[in-house]
Amino acid sequence: MSDPLVARLRSALGDGAVVDDADVLDTHRNDHATFCTAGVPRVLVRPSSTDEVVEVLRTAGSFGVPVVTQGARTGLSGAANAIDGCLLLSTSRMNQILEISVEDHVAVVQPGVVNAELSRAVLAKELFYPPDPSSWEMSTIGGNIATNAGGLCCVKYGVTADFVRGLEVVLASGEVVRTGRRAAKGVAGYDLTRLIVGSEGTLGVVTEATLALRPAPEAALTAAATFRSIEDGIAAAAAVMASGLRPSLLEFLDRPTVQAIQSYRDMGLPADAGSMLIAQSDRGPRAAADVAQIAAICLSYGAIDVAEASDAEESRMLLEARRLVNSALEPLGTTLIDDVSVARSQLVPLLRGIAEIGEKYQVLICCPGHVGDGNMHPTVVFDRNDAAAEERALEAFGAVMELGLRLGGTITGEHGIGTLKASWLETELGPVSLELHRRIKHAFDPDNLLNPGKVLR
Amino acid sequence: MSDPLVARLRSALGDGAVVDDADVLDTHRNDHATFCTAGVPRVLVRPSSTDEVVEVLRTAGSFGVPVVTQGARTGLSGAANAIDGCLLLSTSRMNQILEISVEDHVAVVQPGVVNAELSRAVLAKELFYPPDPSSWEMSTIGGNIATNAGGLCCVKYGVTADFVRGLEVVLASGEVVRTGRRAAKGVAGYDLTRLIVGSEGTLGVVTEATLALRPAPEAALTAAATFRSIEDGIAAAAAVMASGLRPSLLEFLDRPTVQAIQSYRDMGLPADAGSMLIAQSDRGPRAAADVAQIAAICLSYGAIDVAEASDAEESRMLLEARRLVNSALEPLGTTLIDDVSVARSQLVPLLRGIAEIGEKYQVLICCPGHVGDGNMHPTVVFDRNDAAAEERALEAFGAVMELGLRLGGTITGEHGIGTLKASWLETELGPVSLELHRRIKHAFDPDNLLNPGKVLR
Repeated sequence: MSDPLVARLRSALGDGAVVDDADVLDTHRNDHATFCTAGVPRVLVRPSSTDEVVEVLRTAGSFGVPVVTQGARTGLSGAANAIDGCLLLSTSRMNQILEISVEDHVAVVQPGVVNAELSRAVLAKELFYPPDPSSWEMSTIGGNIATNAGGLCCVKYGVTADFVRGLEVVLASGEVVRTGRRAAKGVAGYDLTRLIVGSEGTLGVVTEATLALRPAPEAALTAAATFRSIEDGIAAAAAVMASGLRPSLLEFLDRPTVQAIQSYRDMGLPADAGSMLIAQSDRGPRAAADVAQIAAICLSYGAIDVAEASDAEESRMLLEARRLVNSALEPLGTTLIDDVSVARSQLVPLLRGIAEIGEKYQVLICCPGHVGDGNMHPTVVFDRNDAAAEERALEAFGAVMELGLRLGGTITGEHGIGTLKASWLETELGPVSLELHRRIKHAFDPDNLLNPGKVLR
Repeated sequence: MSDPLVARLRSALGDGAVVDDADVLDTHRNDHATFCTAGVPRVLVRPSSTDEVVEVLRTAGSFGVPVVTQGARTGLSGAANAIDGCLLLSTSRMNQILEISVEDHVAVVQPGVVNAELSRAVLAKELFYPPDPSSWEMSTIGGNIATNAGGLCCVKYGVTADFVRGLEVVLASGEVVRTGRRAAKGVAGYDLTRLIVGSEGTLGVVTEATLALRPAPEAALTAAATFRSIEDGIAAAAAVMASGLRPSLLEFLDRPTVQAIQSYRDMGLPADAGSMLIAQSDRGPRAAADVAQIAAICLSYGAIDVAEASDAEESRMLLEARRLVNSALEPLGTTLIDDVSVARSQLVPLLRGIAEIGEKYQVLICCPGHVGDGNMHPTVVFDRNDAAAEERALEAFGAVMELGLRLGGTITGEHGIGTLKASWLETELGPVSLELHRRIKHAFDPDNLLNPGKVLR
């Protein structure tokens, strides 16, 4: 007995665009979030055009079927997880870079374009698309927009939202709306572009994005320093940020993270390192002076050891410690990655509090993070085969968010809410803001068809 | 017979905060927009705290009286103009800088703080609040937020919205909501902060803002160049933007503007100048090399004359031409200032089209603008005592916006919609976006009490 929804979609989009094979559907149930439930989808659709997305949303609407839009499913909060009986809308066939304009410094892309592909294409024209989430080799621009993805270079260049000029969006009704503009500046009407960026597929389906580009960055150099304590490392980071140097990257690793990396691979990191900073300047001719100044700042804040790269290869090696974090933690157990973001003045209390949470719940918490932005990734590491350890890990994970909120911060700097943090979002927003969120959701999607239960429960 | 609304407000806020003197009310009817109708207000209230704003909005709501929030009334689109029978809510008493944090690079301010006052206060702590609308000596941060004000330095630093981290807002219901955060990064929920920035008092009353600051800029130097044609000047501007120099200011003046300035004061500007560029670099030790490179670019695009400043005083003199625009146009007649913004590739067709519009409607149109951002201010100059000239001027003003839209641009880069452009906004947005705007307005302000008729008719 054929599913009438599937039949309708096949007749509209062709057989190849519509998948109802249970095994294939099963492989599309999850994004990269651990511990988020995923339902069983009814059908997977891969439209190739805005018109086809319109057709899909109209059809879903007429059947009253919820729609979950998926890019590369590299998200970390379950926003792209299937809902029971849902239609999965994959953007994988909408993967064209439609235009790169050197004159206007913009790219126009479909949502399924992979970040790395766009970054390389614009670099070939001596342009630069800065947003660099660590998933950039896999994740799509549509997914980056849905989560307002961050990355290492945000500290200098900003997040995905800062590079989205305009969008084409299909609403739940099947209507198509264009938001924003190609021009650099504009204040005509409410900022619908920013409202949709970061809305995790709950307000509409992005079918085209006009992205701002910059001239290609100049050559970069890296410095790394280890410190005896958290306090010294954080104070040095604050001094670097206050100096006017504008580092293009400023990363922090705490003691457990440094130890995990050194155990994973001998990088010559001191056994007594209480924290580590890695900084980069991409100011070309000034980069050498910048890293020298960063090194001097680190020494004046009591660094045990400072290394300054003098070329690209040495820079790459100094960055390697940061790049190895995930690999180094993997052998230690299952990880639950937090994403709290606080004002920089609250970093020491945050890090001290996280160490206490680790002790209280008897779990290992490693804390790498984008210290220049105050956006840290406390990572709870535990044995998933040990039910008691898993329970303690989940409690520690929540306690970290509670601490972040208590320090005036946010539960998520760049990973989003999805289902993982939907209950925590209510705490962060409070009842008045939550009600406004619900009304905005209703204004866009009155029948609650787009990614229901994500962001807002 | 006393007005019961006035009596209620006086008993709640004290006599000094409530004004119903007709002469005083009359002086508060208008912002700086020419040609926008202004109604007769019922009362002017100057609350001193968030609690008082709550009281004002609850009272207005219970009387069903519309509320128009006013800062310094320097707006150019009539958004702060009175509506018949309205309550004017002035933020003039909420003028405290609550905090400047050197460590977190943020300032927390009340809405009535004047931009220049904040800029100077943070500079005294070696910090920098970049947004610099030309009204900055008078306009308030609340007004800057309401209009998402731009300025000269946007080309490098961005607009007001880029510096607003979080807001406290009183809704039409009198409920208080906090949006955003103090931390640099955060993606928890929808971006209500950006939705309120630029909403021109239609969604809520901002009672506190947390603003991002930067380290103080380095020393700046200026270069100026004149060209035979529009095309040469625009091509040189595009080359400067493509060069990676990141000018902190890049201004354009067309032939009629250059001539008006030279007539107003002898600045030695060539009589045959078809266009003029003024550029600045604030990269300190690199500024001299930057202006030399800008000068070389201008020469390679056929500049008639190029001047490079070697110190702050020379820089100031080169900028003088730009600063004199308004004074130079004033003796020529009444001005109607457009604010179209287009992608840079459309600047030549825009400027050529504007010249044609001037000829067609037989009005003088001077066109200075922030060329680096593609945001131009075509200014129609006419004799207001000549009814026919006034009609032609208004037609030309509209034709410029129509041209901007035809070239894929927007009707307003930084001045906002107010009442002046409310009908044009409908053209720019189209019916689907317009309906979304109305639903968002309804979600925030279901009884349409906040600045009704502004932005959305």
